Amino acid sequence: MEERLKEQFDSILDDERLKKQIDFIVEIDKEKNINRQTHLSGHGRAENDAEHAWHMAIMAYLLKEYSNEPIDVAKVMLMCLIHDVVEIDAGDTYAYDKEGLKTQKEREEKAKERIYSLLPEDQKKVLTDLFDEFEAYETAESKFAHSLDNFQPLLLNNSNEGGDWKAHGVNSEIVYTRQSKTALGSEKLFKVTDAIIQDNIKKGNLPL
Amino acid sequence: MEERLKEQFDSILDDERLKKQIDFIVEIDKEKNINRQTHLSGHGRAENDAEHAWHMAIMAYLLKEYSNEPIDVAKVMLMCLIHDVVEIDAGDTYAYDKEGLKTQKEREEKAKERIYSLLPEDQKKVLTDLFDEFEAYETAESKFAHSLDNFQPLLLNNSNEGGDWKAHGVNSEIVYTRQSKTALGSEKLFKVTDAIIQDNIKKGNLPL
Repeated sequence: MEERLKEQFDSILDDERLKKQIDFIVEIDKEKNINRQTHLSGHGRAENDAEHAWHMAIMAYLLKEYSNEPIDVAKVMLMCLIHDVVEIDAGDTYAYDKEGLKTQKEREEKAKERIYSLLPEDQKKVLTDLFDEFEAYETAESKFAHSLDNFQPLLLNNSNEGGDWKAHGVNSEIVYTRQSKTALGSEKLFKVTDAIIQDNIKKGNLPL
Repeated sequence: MEERLKEQFDSILDDERLKKQIDFIVEIDKEKNINRQTHLSGHGRAENDAEHAWHMAIMAYLLKEYSNEPIDVAKVMLMCLIHDVVEIDAGDTYAYDKEGLKTQKEREEKAKERIYSLLPEDQKKVLTDLFDEFEAYETAESKFAHSLDNFQPLLLNNSNEGGDWKAHGVNSEIVYTRQSKTALGSEKLFKVTDAIIQDNIKKGNLPL
């Protein structure tokens, strides 16, 4: 057994590529500790980034028919899964946090470089390119991913009678400004968004 | 505004398909409350099913080159993302819980029917077929997904000095039995698994 053990470990340590991949995989476990401002349905605890990304990726698959443009759904799913990895270092910046938003880009660029550099060069390139594509908001895939990034917390917040809006003293104008870009990826999801916002105004969950 | 509000809501309520999709999406939020026996790296809290699935889906993409057979990686990713949805009703069954394992299949079949029936018929079929494929353990995709389902908690447990094994009084023979199927999807990942188990035996984290 001892012989085999030594042999196995030598072979692991020699495999620099797999070692890098595993280092990255263990590192991103930390994303599960990055909490968001959104709360789980049923008036639950704060949601974390990993759960949010999981939810978005499934939504990408189920709602793909509502993208304004044809999309490569597998690409959108991967984009959703990795879009918040940078927040391991940069933290979550709340959509309505003006001060935080000013430094968000710089913090996230540093984080991107550190975290993705754990990977082999080719995979670092694929994932940072995908993150940059998401951030650039230009391709059909990134626009649809952003629509989901807006729509997912809206659904949870709606299920909690607008608790997250209330906690942050947000009004409907601010929410509309934030959600207006949902239409860039999906007119259909924006229509639902609009209806949900209006319904919450009506119910007194969101001030005009 | 009132006019538009009414019009929007009528159109939402009329769209039975989208309404079903949203019902399912909000329902699966509950998966974030299903805790596993595995703990997060850094001796963290118990991991939940949604986080575990997120981690597995990213691993599927990064480690695809180690699958024994060629795979459709997008299919594996979706399989990973949805493989534990049934646990919303059926609960998490620990890999070493003999009693729980006896009724697991029956509990999960019931859960599958209830939860996926929230979706439109065509999407219910796609996702239940994918879950059944995972469970049947026959295709290349399902074998690789199972390898990841084993390998992901192993990495976390290894990073925590085998804390989860210690908590359950598990020995190396039991772990080997459980992990032996990792080789069906990936000989390479089984080699690393073997090395990690041996290393933990050596360090006293896992009794022979």
